[in-house]
Amino acid sequence: MNGPFSSALARIRPLDRAAIAEADALDRRLTKPPGALGRLEDLGRQLCGIAGSCPPPLPAPGAVAVFAGDHGVVARGVTPWPQEVTAQMVANFCAGGAAINVLARQHGARMLVVDVGVASPLDDQPGLLPRKVAPGTADLAGGPAMTMEQTVTALDTGAEVAAMLVEDGARCLVTGEMGIGNTTPAAALIAALTGRSPAAVTGRGTGIDDVTLARKVAVIEQALDRHAKAVAAGPLAALAALGGLELAALTGFIVGGAASRVPVVVDGVIADAALLVAVRLAPDVVACCMAGHRSVEPGASAVLEELRLEPLLDLGMRLGEGSGACLALPIVEAAARILREMATFDAAGVSEKVSENDAGPNPAG
Amino acid sequence: MNGPFSSALARIRPLDRAAIAEADALDRRLTKPPGALGRLEDLGRQLCGIAGSCPPPLPAPGAVAVFAGDHGVVARGVTPWPQEVTAQMVANFCAGGAAINVLARQHGARMLVVDVGVASPLDDQPGLLPRKVAPGTADLAGGPAMTMEQTVTALDTGAEVAAMLVEDGARCLVTGEMGIGNTTPAAALIAALTGRSPAAVTGRGTGIDDVTLARKVAVIEQALDRHAKAVAAGPLAALAALGGLELAALTGFIVGGAASRVPVVVDGVIADAALLVAVRLAPDVVACCMAGHRSVEPGASAVLEELRLEPLLDLGMRLGEGSGACLALPIVEAAARILREMATFDAAGVSEKVSENDAGPNPAG
Repeated sequence: MNGPFSSALARIRPLDRAAIAEADALDRRLTKPPGALGRLEDLGRQLCGIAGSCPPPLPAPGAVAVFAGDHGVVARGVTPWPQEVTAQMVANFCAGGAAINVLARQHGARMLVVDVGVASPLDDQPGLLPRKVAPGTADLAGGPAMTMEQTVTALDTGAEVAAMLVEDGARCLVTGEMGIGNTTPAAALIAALTGRSPAAVTGRGTGIDDVTLARKVAVIEQALDRHAKAVAAGPLAALAALGGLELAALTGFIVGGAASRVPVVVDGVIADAALLVAVRLAPDVVACCMAGHRSVEPGASAVLEELRLEPLLDLGMRLGEGSGACLALPIVEAAARILREMATFDAAGVSEKVSENDAGPNPAG
Repeated sequence: MNGPFSSALARIRPLDRAAIAEADALDRRLTKPPGALGRLEDLGRQLCGIAGSCPPPLPAPGAVAVFAGDHGVVARGVTPWPQEVTAQMVANFCAGGAAINVLARQHGARMLVVDVGVASPLDDQPGLLPRKVAPGTADLAGGPAMTMEQTVTALDTGAEVAAMLVEDGARCLVTGEMGIGNTTPAAALIAALTGRSPAAVTGRGTGIDDVTLARKVAVIEQALDRHAKAVAAGPLAALAALGGLELAALTGFIVGGAASRVPVVVDGVIADAALLVAVRLAPDVVACCMAGHRSVEPGASAVLEELRLEPLLDLGMRLGEGSGACLALPIVEAAARILREMATFDAAGVSEKVSENDAGPNPAG
C-alpha cells in the first residue's frame, strides 16, 4: 500500500499532552466547581489534545460523509429490505429527505454522499460523489467479500474524502453509511476482531424477526469458519474477507480524520466495526474519536467496551446514516465553547470554596 | 391561593391523544425502519401531544430562567462555598461568563436571571429580573424554611416568568437555578416526598468531602424529624418547611410552562425536586416535561425513577444552572424536525420492507 490511506496511517500520533495539561489547568480556573461538568470536561481536554492547543478550536462546522455500498450476503436472506433501497436512499439523501439530512441541516453540518459500492448504476445527483469501487461485495459466507485491491481502494477513498472535507473547512467529521444488509458484515468483523461469538454481537438491524435473526447468526458463523485464516492474518485481511466497501471506506475516513487532527464522531455499529479495524491498525486513532451514541445493536456495545469508549448519547437509536453521531455534535461543540468562553474565578470576581474544616459547626454542636 | 400559580395549576391537562396518534401514523411513513430513531420518536409523539398538533411546532427558541436564592441552612456547614457566591454568580450570569451563558448562547436560547431570594441586595443588572421574596430562607433544620405566604409568592413568580417568556416567543422552557447550599433543601424535599432515607438521596453537591456529607445528611434527618407534620400535610406544606425560594419558583415555572403547553426541559436535582412537588399537585404536569439529563446527585435519580422519566443525557454533570437541560435542547428540537422535515416512503420513492417469510432462503439451503 502506498496511497492516501497508508500515508494517513503513518501520520497518526498520540494526543498532545501539553495541551491537555493546559486544558486541565484552565478548567480548574473556570467559574464552577471542579468536575461539575462531567464528561464535557473530558471532551474539552480531548479536543485540546487533538488540536494541540488550549483553548481548542471550535469543532464546527461539521461534515457528514455517508458512504453507500451493497452486500452480496443479502441473497442469504439476512434482511427483509430489498437491495434497491440502498440506491433509493442515496437519492433520498441527495434530495434532502432522510433523517441524516434533517440532523445535518439542524447542526449546520455539510453532507456528502459517496457511492463506493452501490449495486445499481447511479445517476449524477447533487451532493453525490461517484467513487464506486465495485457494484456491491461478494457473499461473505461463500467467499471473500472483497479482493484486497478493492479493500485498499475503498480505504483510500475514505481517507481522501476525510482530507478533502477538512481541506474544505470541516472542523469535525461525522461517520455515515447506507447499505442494505450491512449489519451482517459489521457483526462478522466485530466477532472476528474481538473473539466474541456471532450470537453475542449480532442484532436485529432494521428490526428483523427471530427467524431472520437466527439465519443471520448462522450466516455469520459460516463466514467466520470459512475465513478463519484471513482473520488470523490480521485486521486488513479480515476486513477484506468479511467487510464491505462502505465499511472499508469508513475505516479510511476515520484514519484520515485522525491524521488531519480533527475530532471524528463515530456513529453506530457499522462505524464502530470500521473504527475497530482502524484501531487495530493504529491504536492512537481512537484518541481522536468520540462515540457519538450507543446503538442498540449488541455489536456496538461490544466495540465500545473493547475500546473503553463511553458514548455521548444512549437514546435507543439504530438507524445508522450517521444519525446518532450527528445528534451528538452540539455536545462536542459545547465542550469546546466551555473552555473558550467561560469566565474564570479571578475575572468574574467569584469566590472559591473555603477549606471544608472551616465550613461550619456540626449540626449537633 | 388565587394567583398566577393556582390559575396555571387549574389549566393543566393531559396530552392530546389525537395528535399523538397522528404522530405515530406519520412516523410509520417516514423513510426509516419503524422504531429506528428510538427515543427521538417518543419525544416527537410527546411534542405533538403537548402542542395538540402534528407535526409539532418547532420547540425553539428556548428560554432559560435561572432562579437565584439563598439558604439559611448554610450556617450549619453543609457546603464549603461562601454564601456570597450566589450573588457573585448572579453577576457572572448577567455578564455572560457562566457555563449556562455559554450553552444558552450556543443553542440560541434567551436567558433570564430572576432574584427570588438572594441574601444580599443586588444592583440592577441587564438580564436580571428583581423579584426578591425574602433575603434567603430560614434554616430548615431549625424551623420552617419559608412562610406559606413566601412560598406562594415564589410559586406565583415562577408561573409568571414562564407565562411571560412564552408570551415573548419562547417555545421551550429550560429550568435553571443558583443558590449556595440548595442541594440540601432539594434532598430534604425528595426524601420527604418519596419516603426514601436522607442518606439515599443526599449527594456531594459541588463536591463536598465525607465529613461534610455526613453533616449534611444529619441536618436533613433533623429537618425531616422536625417537619414530619408539615410533610404529612401535603406537598405545599412540605415545600414551605423544607424547600427554598428558587425551588418554589421552579415549581411555579414548571407548572406555568405546562399550562402554556410548551415543553419544559428539566435540569438536575434542584429542578427534579421542584418537578416532584409540581407533579404531586397536578400529575399531568409531567407529560409536558423532559428530563434533560441525569445529574450525578442521587436525589436526581430518585426523582427520575419515581416519575418514570428517562433522561435525555447522562454525562456525569452536577453543575446546575440549567446546564444539563440546556445541553439537551438540540435533541428536543431534532425530534420535532424529524416529524416536520423527513420524507415519507411514498414521496421519496423508497421501497418498504417485504414480508420476512419471503426474505430469502435459509443459508443451509
